[in-house]
Amino acid sequence: MSTAEKRVYNFSAGPAVLPMSVLQKAQEHLLCLPGAGASILEISHRSKPFIEILDHAIANLTKLLNVPDTHKIVFLQGGSRLQFSMIPMNFLKGSNQTADYILTGAWGKKAYAEAKKEGETNVAWNGGDEGFNRLPKDEELQLSSNSAYTYFTSNETIEGVQFSGEPNVGDSPLICDTSSDFLHRPLPIANYGMVYACAQKNAGPAGVTVAIIREDLLDRASDTLPGYCDYRQHVNNGSMYNTPPTFSIYLMNLVFEWLLNDVGGLEKMHSANKEKAAILYNAIDASHGFYAGHAHPSSRSLMNVTFRLPNDELQDKFVAEAAKNDLSSLKGHRSVGGIRASIYNAMPIEGVTLLGQFMTEFCQANA
Amino acid sequence: MSTAEKRVYNFSAGPAVLPMSVLQKAQEHLLCLPGAGASILEISHRSKPFIEILDHAIANLTKLLNVPDTHKIVFLQGGSRLQFSMIPMNFLKGSNQTADYILTGAWGKKAYAEAKKEGETNVAWNGGDEGFNRLPKDEELQLSSNSAYTYFTSNETIEGVQFSGEPNVGDSPLICDTSSDFLHRPLPIANYGMVYACAQKNAGPAGVTVAIIREDLLDRASDTLPGYCDYRQHVNNGSMYNTPPTFSIYLMNLVFEWLLNDVGGLEKMHSANKEKAAILYNAIDASHGFYAGHAHPSSRSLMNVTFRLPNDELQDKFVAEAAKNDLSSLKGHRSVGGIRASIYNAMPIEGVTLLGQFMTEFCQANA
Repeated sequence: MSTAEKRVYNFSAGPAVLPMSVLQKAQEHLLCLPGAGASILEISHRSKPFIEILDHAIANLTKLLNVPDTHKIVFLQGGSRLQFSMIPMNFLKGSNQTADYILTGAWGKKAYAEAKKEGETNVAWNGGDEGFNRLPKDEELQLSSNSAYTYFTSNETIEGVQFSGEPNVGDSPLICDTSSDFLHRPLPIANYGMVYACAQKNAGPAGVTVAIIREDLLDRASDTLPGYCDYRQHVNNGSMYNTPPTFSIYLMNLVFEWLLNDVGGLEKMHSANKEKAAILYNAIDASHGFYAGHAHPSSRSLMNVTFRLPNDELQDKFVAEAAKNDLSSLKGHRSVGGIRASIYNAMPIEGVTLLGQFMTEFCQANA
Repeated sequence: MSTAEKRVYNFSAGPAVLPMSVLQKAQEHLLCLPGAGASILEISHRSKPFIEILDHAIANLTKLLNVPDTHKIVFLQGGSRLQFSMIPMNFLKGSNQTADYILTGAWGKKAYAEAKKEGETNVAWNGGDEGFNRLPKDEELQLSSNSAYTYFTSNETIEGVQFSGEPNVGDSPLICDTSSDFLHRPLPIANYGMVYACAQKNAGPAGVTVAIIREDLLDRASDTLPGYCDYRQHVNNGSMYNTPPTFSIYLMNLVFEWLLNDVGGLEKMHSANKEKAAILYNAIDASHGFYAGHAHPSSRSLMNVTFRLPNDELQDKFVAEAAKNDLSSLKGHRSVGGIRASIYNAMPIEGVTLLGQFMTEFCQANA
């Protein structure tokens, strides 16, 4: 590779790093998918080779997450933004129930804003007054008596706070945006009404959203919904209500195969993620306040490590010097500033180790 | 390439054939986009390299179609199906106007079904009684006096009928689904209220929909619309309301570059498409009725050539023997049967010539 083509360690919050073996396989077969006579980009979604890919994707995801028969897997488009609306359109609109929202960061707030357009809502907890730096305890949740569902965001990418388990919401169906930590650990799907994730952070490229929906919830939808926004259409047509994003599903399936065969499953992935995150949080904790972590230690994200330096000048210097060391995309979200290191499943430990060393050296040189 | 990796001529109706040079470029850069330090699949949609790609895509499309300043280009997800709803949600819902629909095939019917959910509609013409085998004359159109817009499908892929120009609808804003013939010829964008196309037939991979919208129409939308379904969000945020399908936009831009630089623009593309289609229609017309074209000659599609053989047995034999000659995916849509040869922009004339020869020989052997 020439200099222009040298790969760096990419700490982007999403779209984000993918496993090298996945990229290599996609590259190898890009002109011709073996046996298909054409590229995965060119074959019909109703062709035998693509239907096999879709079937494998569903089977592999079912295996990875141990998805029970009660739940259906569908592949959608429109990212989390469309899910923010589709969830209340399907599960709240027209009912006399109230949807509960647990707000732990920017994405949950956006989901809540869309839900308000569709029906009655209740904020079960709002971490905004504390700058979204921690998660609620179960006893802090104020749920409705007639809860349609309880919505939460398992990992808030901008603030870097993450649930390590499920909040206790009683009988209310739990609906979770897992976009930025999907498949980072095993998930007890049976405890959820619905889990969804846009792929581009932890599970694939931009342009596909996977949803796992408890089938009995589908009965709530009205026939007056816009066709694409009606989950039943996607479930009943096996993700073929319209042409699915074929290449994105293909690539997501390669990620599923990588998790199953190369990583060895989600327990092992979880261990690796804890090990990686510890390297960076240790660097923060050892800095005597030079690096100020945003999240309360009990709520720290394994995916997005967020912190500040003493001033903006040092932050800019940190980002610039890191880039010279091939540690890229470390600037925090434009809405909050600071530093954010996104260390999703596919970020190799070598990259995190290098960043940890860089943080220690930068602290020593600039504290 | 081994036998398993041999490319065939792929007459799929979509996703469909892409230019070889586009696939090769995407393959070459799949591990590392020059200068980006990562794959196009991995870089942030807010990174400089991606913003350059998006800017180029808009500039190239503007150049190809001579898009005037009055119109905005946005890249969306959810395919035509979501546009079927978004169009009436944005431009009809809550008004006291009526949306006119010209029904020339299966896709227009589906669009109309979604519009009925959102407001008052009128069927301006319906070709269903004649089996959708021809297009209306202007004098046959029965438009509303208070028309919100007039919707039509420039090319119906299933039936193989195609408008070669625009219907005359007076002052009613013309809205067109050009999914299956986008960029097959120059288009007078100034005459349209909106033109849209999902990419996977004539302009790229599945997973991205491009829309070109006359800006003044955006004022019609209500703030109560689901965020993702509100065109203003996409226009005002420059297709960055949420993470766009980055790879699909990248690939679509490579197709735009191919059209500009390799083909030499849309006039030349149109000539090539007419030449290709003539080869197959000549084979039909020379067959003395062995091949029965579905479309009336005046309404024949340059993109999807649809015809029947005397019986199902011969049709199956045709498809099977064609496949042995590396002419793939010729079976008609499952809803109508018969044969369909999709010969989009990227289908090389060599493939069409081979199919034309095969048709002539098959007719001689089996008529």
